[in-house]
Amino acid sequence: MKNLIIASTSTLHGGGYLDYLLPELSAHFKNITTLLFIPYARPSGITHNEYTEKVRQAFSKIDIKVKGLHEFENPKEAIKQAEGIFTGGGNTFLLVSQLYRYDLMTLLSETLKKGTPYLGTSAGSNITGLTMQTTNDMPIIYPPSFQTLGMIPFNLNPHYLDPDTNSTHMGETRETRIKEFHQFNTLPVLGLREGSWLEVRNETITLKGNLKARLFRQNQEPEELESGSDLSFLK
Amino acid sequence: MKNLIIASTSTLHGGGYLDYLLPELSAHFKNITTLLFIPYARPSGITHNEYTEKVRQAFSKIDIKVKGLHEFENPKEAIKQAEGIFTGGGNTFLLVSQLYRYDLMTLLSETLKKGTPYLGTSAGSNITGLTMQTTNDMPIIYPPSFQTLGMIPFNLNPHYLDPDTNSTHMGETRETRIKEFHQFNTLPVLGLREGSWLEVRNETITLKGNLKARLFRQNQEPEELESGSDLSFLK
Repeated sequence: MKNLIIASTSTLHGGGYLDYLLPELSAHFKNITTLLFIPYARPSGITHNEYTEKVRQAFSKIDIKVKGLHEFENPKEAIKQAEGIFTGGGNTFLLVSQLYRYDLMTLLSETLKKGTPYLGTSAGSNITGLTMQTTNDMPIIYPPSFQTLGMIPFNLNPHYLDPDTNSTHMGETRETRIKEFHQFNTLPVLGLREGSWLEVRNETITLKGNLKARLFRQNQEPEELESGSDLSFLK
Repeated sequence: MKNLIIASTSTLHGGGYLDYLLPELSAHFKNITTLLFIPYARPSGITHNEYTEKVRQAFSKIDIKVKGLHEFENPKEAIKQAEGIFTGGGNTFLLVSQLYRYDLMTLLSETLKKGTPYLGTSAGSNITGLTMQTTNDMPIIYPPSFQTLGMIPFNLNPHYLDPDTNSTHMGETRETRIKEFHQFNTLPVLGLREGSWLEVRNETITLKGNLKARLFRQNQEPEELESGSDLSFLK
């Protein structure tokens, strides 16, 4: 029994924080009074308090209160008792390090399997995959493991970017990086463009938003999946 | 006694592999008959043999033979006895994992401190810093540590990219990522643009090539350094 929204990004170009998702979130978190926010990924290094305040302002538009996980003395209890949980974006290495530091990775996975509604954006989406190994983030901190929540049977690449054919930059494209991943790993990787999200209801995984997503499998050509696709076939 | 060329990239847009550096390398590796190549970073997942062949072709233009480290039964002896060493680009997580797997990290550092001439490009440059924590690469494999060679008293960000002011993409800029690094780490980070390299002669570190480099220090505004700058002041 899973109930997740896993979004590529919190914010679309020109839009406000979470704006494009609010109608969806209003339904996803209906009947919820207070949402538990996990601020550990700290985008641009902002504090847990600053980050939680930003989230609080966004959710006030759909009449949901927000409490930051850092405000609780016992974070395990806070997760167990949460009505709904949101993990925001930032640095995935930091987020994963903190979840392990407070021994929350397994507990969070178990809690979400029991049906607590979840929202992830960016780094908070990355951790719903089997491992964090297809993150775009910089390894600013050394986590004890790359294993993550495993709420979907594959990995994600949020903020997926198509190669820029006009670029003169010689760094690897996103596609090249994911191909390098597949030299050593068999897991499928879904490149989720900004504006796309996955809806997970029990074992059904559906691609939502207006865009296609790009699926990478070991030893296969990448494949474009239409919005509305059922991804439950992936293993 | 150090003698290193540490380049942002192997290849400039529109140019051949190592072409722009060959005049410099001809002087750097003068009197050297055979260069030892470390192919572990495997760009796009190419094999050690394929990668070594590519390097062999480039160095044949300046009459230097190339042997791949993977061709030796005893890689430690190969490093100790090398006339000169080149580590190519690819995936830094993979490169660092392999160097630890064969117990070569400390030995390579000691060897370079004794004066064996070295060339690094991209991932092969990243590892000359204190840690690999400002790499752009994807964590496709879990290395036992992020510590690297420490041939310079700071970290590098090769292929440094300025923010694209026309972009509608919401992923973090390189500068934002480096600022996140500085939330947790005090080391300076040098953003080395494609076409720039560092020349290290004993304890003197000089910025070479036609471009400026961007220096990031904790709690300070980023600074543009002119080509020719002496970076030995960095700690």
